[in-house]
Amino acid sequence: MNCEAYFCERFEELRKEGRYRVFADLEREVGGFPRATLHCRGEKKQVTVWCSNDYLGMGQHPAILAAMHEALDRCGAGAGGTRNISGTNHYHVMLERELADLHDKEDALLFTSGYVSNWAALGTLASCIPGCVVLSDALNHASMIEGMRGSRAPVRIFAHNDPADLARKLAELDRDTPKLVAFESVYSMDGDIAPIAELCDAAEAYGALTYLDEVHAVGLYGRHGGRIAAQQGLSDRLSVIEGTLAKRFGGVGGYIAASAALCDFVRSYSSGFFFTTALPPHVAAGALASVRYLKSSFVERDNMQGRVALLRRWLDDVGVPHLRNPSHIVPVMVGDADLCKHISDVLLDK
Amino acid sequence: MNCEAYFCERFEELRKEGRYRVFADLEREVGGFPRATLHCRGEKKQVTVWCSNDYLGMGQHPAILAAMHEALDRCGAGAGGTRNISGTNHYHVMLERELADLHDKEDALLFTSGYVSNWAALGTLASCIPGCVVLSDALNHASMIEGMRGSRAPVRIFAHNDPADLARKLAELDRDTPKLVAFESVYSMDGDIAPIAELCDAAEAYGALTYLDEVHAVGLYGRHGGRIAAQQGLSDRLSVIEGTLAKRFGGVGGYIAASAALCDFVRSYSSGFFFTTALPPHVAAGALASVRYLKSSFVERDNMQGRVALLRRWLDDVGVPHLRNPSHIVPVMVGDADLCKHISDVLLDK
Repeated sequence: MNCEAYFCERFEELRKEGRYRVFADLEREVGGFPRATLHCRGEKKQVTVWCSNDYLGMGQHPAILAAMHEALDRCGAGAGGTRNISGTNHYHVMLERELADLHDKEDALLFTSGYVSNWAALGTLASCIPGCVVLSDALNHASMIEGMRGSRAPVRIFAHNDPADLARKLAELDRDTPKLVAFESVYSMDGDIAPIAELCDAAEAYGALTYLDEVHAVGLYGRHGGRIAAQQGLSDRLSVIEGTLAKRFGGVGGYIAASAALCDFVRSYSSGFFFTTALPPHVAAGALASVRYLKSSFVERDNMQGRVALLRRWLDDVGVPHLRNPSHIVPVMVGDADLCKHISDVLLDK
Repeated sequence: MNCEAYFCERFEELRKEGRYRVFADLEREVGGFPRATLHCRGEKKQVTVWCSNDYLGMGQHPAILAAMHEALDRCGAGAGGTRNISGTNHYHVMLERELADLHDKEDALLFTSGYVSNWAALGTLASCIPGCVVLSDALNHASMIEGMRGSRAPVRIFAHNDPADLARKLAELDRDTPKLVAFESVYSMDGDIAPIAELCDAAEAYGALTYLDEVHAVGLYGRHGGRIAAQQGLSDRLSVIEGTLAKRFGGVGGYIAASAALCDFVRSYSSGFFFTTALPPHVAAGALASVRYLKSSFVERDNMQGRVALLRRWLDDVGVPHLRNPSHIVPVMVGDADLCKHISDVLLDK
């Protein structure tokens, strides 16, 4: 088989379907978010970035940058090892404590990304708890799906945000079978929010662990910028809360917050946690500053809610339909890959 | 099932076997590597870190830190999105070009870690090339094994560093079956180096792609700090070279270097590449500075070779046995987990 030729055939297919990705070569500008410089064919021009997930602009916040500069000068560019082999830095330890507190949990565990935290934590729980069956929301993120796939544990899909279907699927399993219910709080495509209390009711009735991905909610909702579960007073009913440091907190990395024993279990058995170099100390320092800042500052979240309302009003004014939902995500469904790419090109160019 | 009780039982087992991990809570000190501050029960003390993989101390190099400070002030704390959704920064683009050049390849692709680069690239190639069979060295790293497992492709294990066994395993497969041979250049446990030319001979005779993990070699060997394959003039014979930015280059992140079509294929089909926030721009800036610096500076590599020889002489002087090998890794085999932990505690305490 000629693999190079095969690769090129597949690109042709992607191009025909309008799904071939072209990455914009950008330079974000501190102090000017969402403006950036676009590099294109040797030329540069100023553009507006319409699609960052640094929702609150924390990636340019002076307090976060100052914390990172200081830690960079103090501890250097990298962790210098895996967490077990000299790579645990005091900033990691402090950040894990802070994240545990943010989510009202005993402990937290850092990963190199949100993707890895889902993949590794779900994969480890599903593969290392003997006989575990995973019940997964139909619209869960790719990182969760890869974690379940990798675990080789049996997976039952329940209808999206449907506690009754979850209860039916749970009832089909043996009483003594260990069960893990995995879902998200805010779904990024439609911006809808899960009925967390009702999903927990079903899980508890059948003695299942619960795993909640709060990647699209941490830092945005709840009293101290925790997330949806905190806002609704449901932290105690969730076995694992997973989040990211890359969106609202403006940096990079992911984590889980859970009981001390569960965190220690994932820490001890997850290949994706301990066979990888730890996050750089200054990245942890920046996240620590960001989490602490958003615990007490409300102006960023209030501004965002106001801007979401403004954008929805503008879209209404010009007759662009958008899905109603209770979250910060404003979905405009184009429904055609080619047209969608064209619109994003227009937004970038003009 | 009571999961908390189950977790605790497993910890007891690990403790009995001397395999329960306790992470040292450290603060590396720029300007003083390998010295660090150990935080322990509310007290601090100065220690020497014996087990960093920042082999050349690039994590404290002024040129790398300056590049990171500058990019941090220019572009902010994070990438602000996935590579496809506004997260590609000009530093990523420049770093990918530099890494392609370092490895004499057409292109390169960045990942959030070396672990993810192996898992995602191997997994994508093995699962997306129809009918692909992977031939894997018996001692390949966990990240490669997870990538192969996740792909669900058939895997044949060949004896460690044994081209004859590889050829036998290849001969058993159908001529038209796509084949991918995966191995490392320097193995981290024994420090032995693969017979790359002979493994490529076998792969070429059967039309197989070759995938070389150079994680323990990049920046240390070869004319421009490329790696073993460059040192031996074998770059052209390898389909994929995988490396890390976290060890010799002192930061965090991983990559593959390969043909433009192969990189584009992994870029287009790897969930672990495009469903995750990109590395922060300043991390890419630091890696870029580090790769460029090590292309022209030889003193760090020469010093390291001298220090490896010195350590081996000291071990000989006091009668501590160590495995002979041609690499920079000096393996002292303790052979007992409890005793090994005791020795590492003594090295940390005294």
